[in-house]
Amino acid sequence: MQKQAGQKAAPDSAPDWLPGLLAGERAALARAITAVENETDEAAAVLQGIRSRLGHALVVGFTGAPGAGKSTLVSAYVAELRRRDLSVGVVAVDPSSPLTGGAILGDRIRMGQHAGDPGVFIRSLASRGHLGGLSRTAARVIDVFDASGRDVVVVETVGTGQSEVEIAEIADVRVVVNAPGLGDDVQAIKAGILEIADILVVNKSDLPFAERSARQLAAMSAQRGHGPVPVLQTSATAGKGVPELADAIAAVGKRKRPDPRARTRRLLQNLVLDRLRRGLAELPPAEVDALADAVLSGRSDIDSALLSLTELLVSRLPQQK
Amino acid sequence: MQKQAGQKAAPDSAPDWLPGLLAGERAALARAITAVENETDEAAAVLQGIRSRLGHALVVGFTGAPGAGKSTLVSAYVAELRRRDLSVGVVAVDPSSPLTGGAILGDRIRMGQHAGDPGVFIRSLASRGHLGGLSRTAARVIDVFDASGRDVVVVETVGTGQSEVEIAEIADVRVVVNAPGLGDDVQAIKAGILEIADILVVNKSDLPFAERSARQLAAMSAQRGHGPVPVLQTSATAGKGVPELADAIAAVGKRKRPDPRARTRRLLQNLVLDRLRRGLAELPPAEVDALADAVLSGRSDIDSALLSLTELLVSRLPQQK
Repeated sequence: MQKQAGQKAAPDSAPDWLPGLLAGERAALARAITAVENETDEAAAVLQGIRSRLGHALVVGFTGAPGAGKSTLVSAYVAELRRRDLSVGVVAVDPSSPLTGGAILGDRIRMGQHAGDPGVFIRSLASRGHLGGLSRTAARVIDVFDASGRDVVVVETVGTGQSEVEIAEIADVRVVVNAPGLGDDVQAIKAGILEIADILVVNKSDLPFAERSARQLAAMSAQRGHGPVPVLQTSATAGKGVPELADAIAAVGKRKRPDPRARTRRLLQNLVLDRLRRGLAELPPAEVDALADAVLSGRSDIDSALLSLTELLVSRLPQQK
Repeated sequence: MQKQAGQKAAPDSAPDWLPGLLAGERAALARAITAVENETDEAAAVLQGIRSRLGHALVVGFTGAPGAGKSTLVSAYVAELRRRDLSVGVVAVDPSSPLTGGAILGDRIRMGQHAGDPGVFIRSLASRGHLGGLSRTAARVIDVFDASGRDVVVVETVGTGQSEVEIAEIADVRVVVNAPGLGDDVQAIKAGILEIADILVVNKSDLPFAERSARQLAAMSAQRGHGPVPVLQTSATAGKGVPELADAIAAVGKRKRPDPRARTRRLLQNLVLDRLRRGLAELPPAEVDALADAVLSGRSDIDSALLSLTELLVSRLPQQK
């Protein structure tokens, strides 16, 4: 039964299409995603209704440098999963910005080859809110895909900013995609993101320097605190190396396993940081300036000023009721 | 008088080369930077001794996408400042990673044209510590350059991760450098960094699509909440557009002015966030997992779990004595 717009659902009344969602029906899946994305009246009941059904899907995050051909590689990986008869959900995450309409459209076009396949469900998220809102929505859509019985959920994040790293962190298996030799700076941009990678990919392996880039990445990853990771070469447009990538992801997935608790833990951590970040930005400028002045005049050292600023921030956070 | 290694300086005894630093002597500048970078016994006295001399230098931050030719552009901008008879300090910031030695070396080679010029002083920072440590060191080196009478301090950050954005934020004037048309993803990576830009540059303007990239950037910047910013085209290798860039930076600098207080305020904010981020990572895993479990089982909604996690974090922060 369709509810009228604006009519408030009783908190515990599950929508009549919830069984369809749990049975993997596509139409119910679409409604559930829309509900959690737009936080409609039905969202809470959906999230309640799927709780006991989490932990089937392996969540695979793809992130990496711009121009690396990430979307094309995701599309080729999805095709490989379909050949293995696995069902797939894709969450394409766009930075919380109205500026990137073009990128979303681009994703949809590149994913076009899967348009007629019921085994693939793609949703682009274009949150206009803050980073925390986007992380939360992405996590909820992942859970909905999981409960609907999808075998693999792919999270593709565009770009390599903090927001993308945080969302990719929610995944069980994280793949970082690189293009060969864009210049010296490439090393640097990878340094931050390298820490979260389970698998490193040099895509566009038909370009010059692919071999060298792969060697550099392997050397860099060997220096990490927590040990080296596999470095693979792919050419998404030619389909080269994609089965090997799928094998490598499955191997890491066997070790790390689908883990809704770890996903939730990382989501909570990201949301707390986001709240603190916003809280800091919203502090009264005069009070922060007073602390800066104390440091500049020598009345306070920087460590005391840090403690004072932290206390000011904490005093203004919402309290537990 | 050289102190013996390991001998503890009395807290208030200024090193005998401090007057030389304030007079702009190069040897004293080198010693002061080394002192604050390595936090030697003399560092506190140096910072105390320069406090009243801050606010002369305009601090200009350069950041941007990998492969954009940032270092070459910085070098060309420095040459232009020298033609205008302005003295310059350069802080080249490397992500807090042992992995990027190559990038540092690259910077030094590209800056080689200024090696014999006493009006240019370049220091690469390669902190092995956390992000907060790097921000703090960068801010202190900026202050030392400022007190030594440098007219302009250029902060170059490699890559476009969170750490680089935070360090670039300390600058009075922020320049974001882009290369023309690296693909769809370029828009996305710019979205986050666009917010902090005072001036946008399309470097390598002799490449195809430079004009189109400049138009796209102008359109994107026009959609920002706080209004459009100048978009300039440069070719650092050919020296094209660099005088115009220097003019544009000077114009923004006239409006925003050297502002040690704002620098200190932003530094404090970054350091607080860094401390909270690390505090969160160091919480006992069992306690965070318990909160995740409460959410997954439906015993807690996500907002209550967020408050609990925040309180847990705060309860473990160092307290003001």
